[in-house]
Amino acid sequence: MKVNGPRLRADLEALAQIGRNSDGGIDRTALSAEDAAARTWYESRCQEAGLEVRCDKWANMVAGAAHSWDGAAVWTGSHLDTVPDGGALDGALGVVAALECVRRITEEHLELAHPVQAVVFADEEGNYSHLFGSYGLVHGYSDRQLAAMTGREGDALTDALRDFSWRTGEPFDPGRIRHFVELHIEQGPILEQRDIPIGVVTSIVGLGGAEVVFTGRADHAGTTPMTMRRDPGRAAGAFLTRLADIAASIGDDAVITCGRFSFQPGASNVVPDAANLALDFRAPTSDQVEALTRALSTAAHECASAHDVGCAVHLDQPVSPVELDAEVRDIIRAAAVRNVLPTMDIPSGAGHDSQNMSRIAPTGMIFVPSHAGRSHSRFEHTDPELLENGATVLLETLVSLAR
Amino acid sequence: MKVNGPRLRADLEALAQIGRNSDGGIDRTALSAEDAAARTWYESRCQEAGLEVRCDKWANMVAGAAHSWDGAAVWTGSHLDTVPDGGALDGALGVVAALECVRRITEEHLELAHPVQAVVFADEEGNYSHLFGSYGLVHGYSDRQLAAMTGREGDALTDALRDFSWRTGEPFDPGRIRHFVELHIEQGPILEQRDIPIGVVTSIVGLGGAEVVFTGRADHAGTTPMTMRRDPGRAAGAFLTRLADIAASIGDDAVITCGRFSFQPGASNVVPDAANLALDFRAPTSDQVEALTRALSTAAHECASAHDVGCAVHLDQPVSPVELDAEVRDIIRAAAVRNVLPTMDIPSGAGHDSQNMSRIAPTGMIFVPSHAGRSHSRFEHTDPELLENGATVLLETLVSLAR
Repeated sequence: MKVNGPRLRADLEALAQIGRNSDGGIDRTALSAEDAAARTWYESRCQEAGLEVRCDKWANMVAGAAHSWDGAAVWTGSHLDTVPDGGALDGALGVVAALECVRRITEEHLELAHPVQAVVFADEEGNYSHLFGSYGLVHGYSDRQLAAMTGREGDALTDALRDFSWRTGEPFDPGRIRHFVELHIEQGPILEQRDIPIGVVTSIVGLGGAEVVFTGRADHAGTTPMTMRRDPGRAAGAFLTRLADIAASIGDDAVITCGRFSFQPGASNVVPDAANLALDFRAPTSDQVEALTRALSTAAHECASAHDVGCAVHLDQPVSPVELDAEVRDIIRAAAVRNVLPTMDIPSGAGHDSQNMSRIAPTGMIFVPSHAGRSHSRFEHTDPELLENGATVLLETLVSLAR
Repeated sequence: MKVNGPRLRADLEALAQIGRNSDGGIDRTALSAEDAAARTWYESRCQEAGLEVRCDKWANMVAGAAHSWDGAAVWTGSHLDTVPDGGALDGALGVVAALECVRRITEEHLELAHPVQAVVFADEEGNYSHLFGSYGLVHGYSDRQLAAMTGREGDALTDALRDFSWRTGEPFDPGRIRHFVELHIEQGPILEQRDIPIGVVTSIVGLGGAEVVFTGRADHAGTTPMTMRRDPGRAAGAFLTRLADIAASIGDDAVITCGRFSFQPGASNVVPDAANLALDFRAPTSDQVEALTRALSTAAHECASAHDVGCAVHLDQPVSPVELDAEVRDIIRAAAVRNVLPTMDIPSGAGHDSQNMSRIAPTGMIFVPSHAGRSHSRFEHTDPELLENGATVLLETLVSLAR
């Protein structure tokens, strides 16, 4: 049993027109007009397939057959929102493939023990809060938590939710979700480099964040001899050069990124009095995330001491790694084997709604290759055949789980 | 012959109230209302001393006795404008001391061969253009150059000049300026550290500027293994760690500063595709500025190669060093010796109006110590006795030159 490839492709292409900007990227920020337009399009596609769409108060949407709302169900899906200037596949592939799977099951009149439903989670990309919808479904939010959330534009989440039409209806009962499976692009280069069409995701890595601040003394760039400076840029430079070695000392799957760096006061003719670095670090196990945290903090203080400047390390609350369900992984592998598709086990370095769903149901994720590892950009691309392969493996996995 | 210390101090204190902000810093941006208020105060002090004030089209002001406007004159002075949140001495000391010297010469009815006049240069700090007034006096500006100048707030210089009341009158004839001497705080720590009250400025250092851009590839911070990244932050970090050694290899007076640094796109969860560094580098001779330029460019490309990223170095037009007049330096030293004040020769790492004036007249500069080397900040401070010593050395120097 296979998905309908042309239909899958046509749906992806239609969806990619919604929010497309003049540079070719896609702007479908969560709870924006473009997000609403994508949901309208999605609902009409569901209705054409004879499916009903329901929402909850976190703006999650679920599509299912009329008879599918009682009893336990197998869920599949992803998200419609994008990062600013994002790509056509991150989230979109999992949403469109989920709809295609439910359509195929309906068309084939398969007799399953449990219905399969397609879910769209709200704000996965975190305009207001990373994995917002799936977290709300699994854990709920206090009014205080909701009131504190603001978007990139400074707008309050509560205002955006109030004005958004896709957020009415009864909460979904987490106890009725029997399994969850998500299809997604890898967003990294490994599957393509090894020429493997199907990645069976073993875990979603743990995530740490920190702001490292080196503090020295602002001085006139012309009148202060080099030997009399307390320049935090020297410590910050030394620290940047050590990040790759620190990651390697923890493990091959550990990564450390410094993506933001600024000097204060930030004038070209003033020796800075502070250097601020934002760090993102990830690893497959909690022990490794802790080891990264310790190693980074030690290195920052060593660099500061060596250059006679101060140092403060402000740690974010870490996100724990998640092990995906072994039985679901076996079922994904078996589905791939039946389709003569090689697989490899692979950890996910990115966060996904699956990490919340795994708290309430056995959960699996299927990766398809990302061309050149590009993601969160207009250059996001996967060959249609690979997308179709992934969707077919998803379909067979869902059928196995629902039997 | 000495200056009137209490009067000098009172003038500095009165001037420091104009533009003072709630944090204790001083905001007297060139051509602002605060600049105009400072000029009004200055003119009234000149008039009390029986001096006339004249302006030119670049908003430079000169004060002199009624009989002093024909024939060659000795000029002294500095500027009233400050950087944002600046201090009470940078520029102000040279302006107030110049007025004090002209007053003392008038009070003593000294018979001099040439009159001494006090000048206030417009926009030394470069809200519109660094050393604006003295450059205009020496070189002039084309309408095209003027039209291109805008302030930090984006306002056009031509509008600001049109609306500013201190800008009418005949141009000053550069040919009539016989000598120029400027008293200024050092803005660095050397005189204080060596306990020397008078610095005889030998030269104003040459200045180079560059933007160094390291370019790599933006990648997802979670999904891209460390070994597959082309992260420009690695090259930028290595480059920052080399700046001190590069400066030391050129000379003890050479300095290199990186005061601005940013990553593109600048998100904490994206491996940057570019790192932009602004460099300021200075040295006392043109050969040294050229050597710094070559060494920085070589190092940037070496760091880029070592980390498999691209590199571009965009050089600003360098500002040539200026040697100050040897005879004027001797006269300054002799004046200090008569007052039993130790001196040392010192290059100026900062730019000053003297560097323009030296193109048209034998020019000297006198430095007094800056406490802790602090400048361009509310912490700018020099003990009153040291200020008075500097003003007295200026007075005796002017008298020697004008005899």
